[in-house]
Amino acid sequence: MDYERTYARYKALVDDYLKLFCRQTKPRSLYEPLRYVVAGGGKRIRSVLVLLSCEAVGGSVQSALHAAGGIEILHNFTLVHDDIMDNARSRRGRATVHTKWDSNVAILVGDELLALAYRAVLQTQSPRIQEITKVFTQGVVEVCEGQAYDKEFETRSDVTVNDYMLMIEKKTAKMVSVSSEIGALIGEGTRASVSALRRYGGYVGRAFQIQDDLLDIVADEEKFGKAVGGDLVEGKRTFLLLEALRRAKGADKALLQAVVTNKGAPRRLIAEYRRIYYETGVIDAALRRVKQDIARAKEELNHLPPSGARATLAWFTDMLLNRTY
Amino acid sequence: MDYERTYARYKALVDDYLKLFCRQTKPRSLYEPLRYVVAGGGKRIRSVLVLLSCEAVGGSVQSALHAAGGIEILHNFTLVHDDIMDNARSRRGRATVHTKWDSNVAILVGDELLALAYRAVLQTQSPRIQEITKVFTQGVVEVCEGQAYDKEFETRSDVTVNDYMLMIEKKTAKMVSVSSEIGALIGEGTRASVSALRRYGGYVGRAFQIQDDLLDIVADEEKFGKAVGGDLVEGKRTFLLLEALRRAKGADKALLQAVVTNKGAPRRLIAEYRRIYYETGVIDAALRRVKQDIARAKEELNHLPPSGARATLAWFTDMLLNRTY
Repeated sequence: MDYERTYARYKALVDDYLKLFCRQTKPRSLYEPLRYVVAGGGKRIRSVLVLLSCEAVGGSVQSALHAAGGIEILHNFTLVHDDIMDNARSRRGRATVHTKWDSNVAILVGDELLALAYRAVLQTQSPRIQEITKVFTQGVVEVCEGQAYDKEFETRSDVTVNDYMLMIEKKTAKMVSVSSEIGALIGEGTRASVSALRRYGGYVGRAFQIQDDLLDIVADEEKFGKAVGGDLVEGKRTFLLLEALRRAKGADKALLQAVVTNKGAPRRLIAEYRRIYYETGVIDAALRRVKQDIARAKEELNHLPPSGARATLAWFTDMLLNRTY
Repeated sequence: MDYERTYARYKALVDDYLKLFCRQTKPRSLYEPLRYVVAGGGKRIRSVLVLLSCEAVGGSVQSALHAAGGIEILHNFTLVHDDIMDNARSRRGRATVHTKWDSNVAILVGDELLALAYRAVLQTQSPRIQEITKVFTQGVVEVCEGQAYDKEFETRSDVTVNDYMLMIEKKTAKMVSVSSEIGALIGEGTRASVSALRRYGGYVGRAFQIQDDLLDIVADEEKFGKAVGGDLVEGKRTFLLLEALRRAKGADKALLQAVVTNKGAPRRLIAEYRRIYYETGVIDAALRRVKQDIARAKEELNHLPPSGARATLAWFTDMLLNRTY
């Protein structure tokens, strides 16, 4: 329970930072939607990772707060622009920016968020500031590349599990890895600790995405807050779909193929797809991958000296695995 | 003529840098349009300013090349996103990204350009790298704010000349000012030289934009490469339109008001608007402003020690004033 309190406390630090950091009001057409986005909440996973990673190598939480805020603002930038590209009408139970305002506003708000993310990171006092900003920038580059692959996949019928893994490495895992790496850099960790925390974040990020794919089909619908099977309805290439396509035969394979061909599945067939996923063993395969990545992530933590922050990171890693929504 | 050769040589340095810097090819949906944008040319004014400003305080051109490239990539980011928001079908005689591909591609290409701009700037070797990147970031923030004001103005009927001046300070002048300031920082200029070059860029940027407004109505159509009066046809609030609205009376005022109300003017009336602009004296007023800013810009150069680079900057400033297209 102590861990949960620590997490809640760090999350509150980030929330407060963001509120203070995004106070500007003019031009209204820019900052009103921007504050709407930032106030929208979220689990603040990436930013808490920055703080914990900094502490785990001996740095202070305070010294990493700017970068933590920057990482969170950057994450919001990706959400705002991705939501335009994906035609998403709502996010975290609220209308998306391009729905509540319009696409032009959402483009500009995203751009401004990206600039503000840099502004926050650049407030960091560190002899390694150039390296920190470079790592951050590499994260932005890869998140764009990941999104490009994701959109390319929508028009391709030959996407493989390997293609998918490359895409999520870039679109999801990289930014998590950047978070823990930047935290370690700010805390002036040794070369070995910085590498360990970078790899840690990569494993956690990948596990997190595959867990997301899993939850979409096996989650407790009430806790999940949205209908299960959304990925299938939208025709998204997920680990489950791609791996099932590789394994299934006959009528089942045809049914899976239809998701690709028709760019989506009818909601009434979700239970049928769930059955195929279980029968082809892809639910198990995904779970095994998640567990393996979580185990690898925790092994990386062994490269760090024992500390409260390291223990919190270990707890945090398990928590991500055990979430059911 | 030596000056022109220097300019051409520096422009070529930037062009070569950009070609080398943007070589990546995958994901194709991202990098193919990105290279299309960067290869699209342009006068490279901002990047040449970075190089000359660095030299003018005693630095080497080579040391400023990364930042010059970054400034140019950043400029291209603003063009790609602005073109989506403005529904512009062509730019520099070629189809815009969102026309040749689609809006989603253009959003992502712009995002990636912004990330690459930072990547280039961050290659700079300088003890002042944090300040340089902060100045750069402030430029991005203001360019977004300027664009937000510009879009707000389209739906407002009470825009004043002062509103307009604030908008162009942010949308155009700031980035020019950032260019000369960053050059001076990389060259490790004194506090006074850095300030002088920052102000220099601000004046040049403002003069450049008002000159642009002027050229739209008085340019030599053949050299200009496009029909004059485009701003009026599109209903853009320019210095000329806003100042003329303030000065005109009776039927002329009504005609100007119609541009605002109808969000544009019919092309057959352009000559009539040109007559009003001349008769209300706003053409003269704009010219006076441009000349005054150019004079102020050149005065700022007097704060620098005499050098070939300083002389080239002075020539460059006059050239911007004297361009007729």
